[in-house]
Amino acid sequence: MDDQTVFTLPLRIYVEDTDAGGIVFYANYLKYFERARTEFIRASGYEWRFDLDHNISFVVHSLDIKYLKSAKLDDMVSVSVRVNKLAKTYIDFHQEVLNQQGETLVKANIKVACVHLDTAKPRTLPSDLSQKISESLGE
Amino acid sequence: MDDQTVFTLPLRIYVEDTDAGGIVFYANYLKYFERARTEFIRASGYEWRFDLDHNISFVVHSLDIKYLKSAKLDDMVSVSVRVNKLAKTYIDFHQEVLNQQGETLVKANIKVACVHLDTAKPRTLPSDLSQKISESLGE
Amino acid sequence: MDDQTVFTLPLRIYVEDTDAGGIVFYANYLKYFERARTEFIRASGYEWRFDLDHNISFVVHSLDIKYLKSAKLDDMVSVSVRVNKLAKTYIDFHQEVLNQQGETLVKANIKVACVHLDTAKPRTLPSDLSQKISESLGE
Amino acid sequence: MDDQTVFTLPLRIYVEDTDAGGIVFYANYLKYFERARTEFIRASGYEWRFDLDHNISFVVHSLDIKYLKSAKLDDMVSVSVRVNKLAKTYIDFHQEVLNQQGETLVKANIKVACVHLDTAKPRTLPSDLSQKISESLGE
Repeated sequence: MDDQTVFTLPLRIYVEDTDAGGIVFYANYLKYFERARTEFIRASGYEWRFDLDHNISFVVHSLDIKYLKSAKLDDMVSVSVRVNKLAKTYIDFHQEVLNQQGETLVKANIKVACVHLDTAKPRTLPSDLSQKISESLGE
Repeated sequence: MDDQTVFTLPLRIYVEDTDAGGIVFYANYLKYFERARTEFIRASGYEWRFDLDHNISFVVHSLDIKYLKSAKLDDMVSVSVRVNKLAKTYIDFHQEVLNQQGETLVKANIKVACVHLDTAKPRTLPSDLSQKISESLGE
Repeated sequence: MDDQTVFTLPLRIYVEDTDAGGIVFYANYLKYFERARTEFIRASGYEWRFDLDHNISFVVHSLDIKYLKSAKLDDMVSVSVRVNKLAKTYIDFHQEVLNQQGETLVKANIKVACVHLDTAKPRTLPSDLSQKISESLGE
Repeated sequence: MDDQTVFTLPLRIYVEDTDAGGIVFYANYLKYFERARTEFIRASGYEWRFDLDHNISFVVHSLDIKYLKSAKLDDMVSVSVRVNKLAKTYIDFHQEVLNQQGETLVKANIKVACVHLDTAKPRTLPSDLSQKISESLGE
């Protein structure tokens, strides 16, 4: 976590999140990242809902993750959101899961693209969303 | 499992299915039951897809489950499907998860209703589906 | 929800919770019920962790659910916990998922048993847990 | 998929896999990759189980994914496994999800490390596992 982090979501690790190795199953961190992005967008005053009426959807284009340490049952963790790049048709996020001592457990770069819901083709981000994010970035 | 079982789906328990207690997380058996119902319907020659064009959906109305023994990582299990009642607007299923020795691990009664997708109000089952199920029941 | 509700957990519906029908997947309500039970136990001053050192675990013995209305993406819901019966080796819970208007969406009775972790045989609840729950019930 | 693919697992997309966007939720492809790696290892004659007795576990160290096209409800897909590098303490996998026309929907590079279960520190792969993988690679 650093100066450019714009949003942080605290969350608890429940039984559903863990696996037989006693740690959080590796796919589940992607759920946490999505929850934090969603709440960041919501906090910006925009609803991240699939907007059937406006034929807009958001899909993850690509991502990379490094797993440094494992979260465990009952842990409280924080999920951070940083916007690395706000482009015309996509947003590059950097996100981390941190423990209560502020150590990074997992970190990821995630590119989210805005698409037409019917064709899955790229489209420009809704202008009010771009503006909200710009504002939250202090630009 | 018994004489009235009309369909059985074999499946493997993976890491994703387990929890920190070393056993299958209790919610995940509902996934297995759904997979088996879906394959039963498919085997009857009907596609269980959400049929937007025909405004038809299927929703679980109610269920009860008894957890007798736990499935564990790497286990092969079988998921059975029995149709207890084929009604005008719903189907009552009895389903079990069995281990390779034929012991019942989990058993459930699950009532699945047919609804209009837009209003979520009950509607009659598609006639070809009712007929396919009747046939598979030997009626 | 009623006078005997001892605990309520608010939670948000995220994309991970939904399915292609546009509603919460039916198995996921069991996750919410578990989260709420866990937080209820935690609020009672007890850690619901799998206690390897003390060879204690908690497993769901049986449950029944009625699905009345569907929760949808972005909804805020409340998950209630009521203790119907505190027995020597198990706890009977009644739990509901309610929307922000206080309507019950899903309701369930869930029996959670205390077992030896190694043998999965029933054992008496830890006495401090029983006492904490009794206190929270105003007994 | 290519000449170096050593294993392919077919699987069906069920309702549990999808989200309100009508497509497979982005985290769920990681489940498919794990299933295929597990079956590849099993087919090599080794059990990928958390080996408490031998204090061995396998954890994902890092990964990158590209999402090219979406899988949808009822689709049959294939999940491929290629071993890019078999090192002393880790394995680099390349994995893809392909549709029935052979098009790549999602592709990933996934580094799986072998660790001591108690300390989570790296350790050498079990020699019989290394040998089995080498053999399956035709080395």
